[in-house]
Amino acid sequence: MRIDIMTLFPEMCRTVFSESIIGRAVAKGIIEINAVNIRDFSADKHNRVDDTPYGGGMGMLMQAQPIYDCYCHIKDEMNAVPHVIYMSPQGKVLTQERAKELSKLDNIVILCGHYEGVDERILEEIVDEEISIGDYVLTGGELPALVLTDCIARMIDGVLPNAEAYSGESHFNVLLEHPQYTKPFSWHGKTVPEVLISGHHANIDEWKRQESIRRTFERRPELLDKASLSKKDCLFLQKIKSETKKTD
Amino acid sequence: MRIDIMTLFPEMCRTVFSESIIGRAVAKGIIEINAVNIRDFSADKHNRVDDTPYGGGMGMLMQAQPIYDCYCHIKDEMNAVPHVIYMSPQGKVLTQERAKELSKLDNIVILCGHYEGVDERILEEIVDEEISIGDYVLTGGELPALVLTDCIARMIDGVLPNAEAYSGESHFNVLLEHPQYTKPFSWHGKTVPEVLISGHHANIDEWKRQESIRRTFERRPELLDKASLSKKDCLFLQKIKSETKKTD
Repeated sequence: MRIDIMTLFPEMCRTVFSESIIGRAVAKGIIEINAVNIRDFSADKHNRVDDTPYGGGMGMLMQAQPIYDCYCHIKDEMNAVPHVIYMSPQGKVLTQERAKELSKLDNIVILCGHYEGVDERILEEIVDEEISIGDYVLTGGELPALVLTDCIARMIDGVLPNAEAYSGESHFNVLLEHPQYTKPFSWHGKTVPEVLISGHHANIDEWKRQESIRRTFERRPELLDKASLSKKDCLFLQKIKSETKKTD
Repeated sequence: MRIDIMTLFPEMCRTVFSESIIGRAVAKGIIEINAVNIRDFSADKHNRVDDTPYGGGMGMLMQAQPIYDCYCHIKDEMNAVPHVIYMSPQGKVLTQERAKELSKLDNIVILCGHYEGVDERILEEIVDEEISIGDYVLTGGELPALVLTDCIARMIDGVLPNAEAYSGESHFNVLLEHPQYTKPFSWHGKTVPEVLISGHHANIDEWKRQESIRRTFERRPELLDKASLSKKDCLFLQKIKSETKKTD
């Protein structure tokens, strides 16, 4: 897979993807990630990429032309029509499910807005999909683009050491993850739950499943509606629900 | 305000905050942001910070000790008890409202998890609040910590050029932002809506408000329940609702 990020701050993107797990996947050639500077495509002699908004208002808007030329350059290089995503607080909110679908594509281009936003016409012209990473506002689209790229990249075969590495995680199976413990056994007077050192695998799996259900119930009960729960899971859920009522 | 990020990848954080608007606020001394390397506080002779999880399972967990010592070092330096946030897919999902509240604090410490997660006991010991930036999974807590820091920082007085710069944005007033246009007037055969060049301020404001309501209705109708709408707004909403029904 190839992901190209159109941005006014390419350095920010490059540092992030030279580090950690994604950096290793790039080094191994599993995935190609490029940060392309929109400013390099400005037709203005002062390399300007923004201007004032029509109708007045604060701040500056990014103009259509440099973005369009940057996009055409990338498309030519890819030799394919990429799926183009604009990071925007007005987009559909990102979910793990959508990231999983996007991880199956071959060519993705992500447009990062900056300043007050982007001329609407470039969005109509090249953008297939607007994605928001959540209901909050940031200074630019770079961090959202990095979040989306990381989320997509880690689901591509070979990026994480093992597919099992993410199958137990929060949101992967809808439920939140159970609490986890590592060495030492006792720390600041707190010990690890006994079951985890019992060596009894069935009991350990049951504990993990139940703590996962408990945590989801306590923190994000609305997620339980989407989870696939066994009969045993449902009985356990009934139990913690009735316990909660008693202590109320 | 001072924000310290406890991380295994301090370089990633430093580059992001040396760029753009946040970088300028740091340079002006309006806000102090530090990335502190947890590994520097390992008591292990090989500087290890992780170990296998109790009860088995894939991957490694971050241990309590290096994080705790890192936190104590920061607390001593701050000479105050900071508000400690752990970035986690199991936390409460970030909203603009919560970021606004956090922007009023003086000292914040953000813990970034990595690998498979963090020993539960350090969370119980030092963390005040777990925050998730959305319902998806990333390779580490660094990008979420950067998202949170950016979101908080831009609401601190003096960081953005003018408070008005964000008051019209998506999510600031619940509604999504209206489409925006800049020069040239005509691009790829598409012209700017006439009202925006009319010079009639009341009409322009009305157009912006209505397009904002229309966009929210089309893309995120559930947000309208939380918006404060005038009588005029409600009439317009009724109108676009009945138009939608006709075309269905």
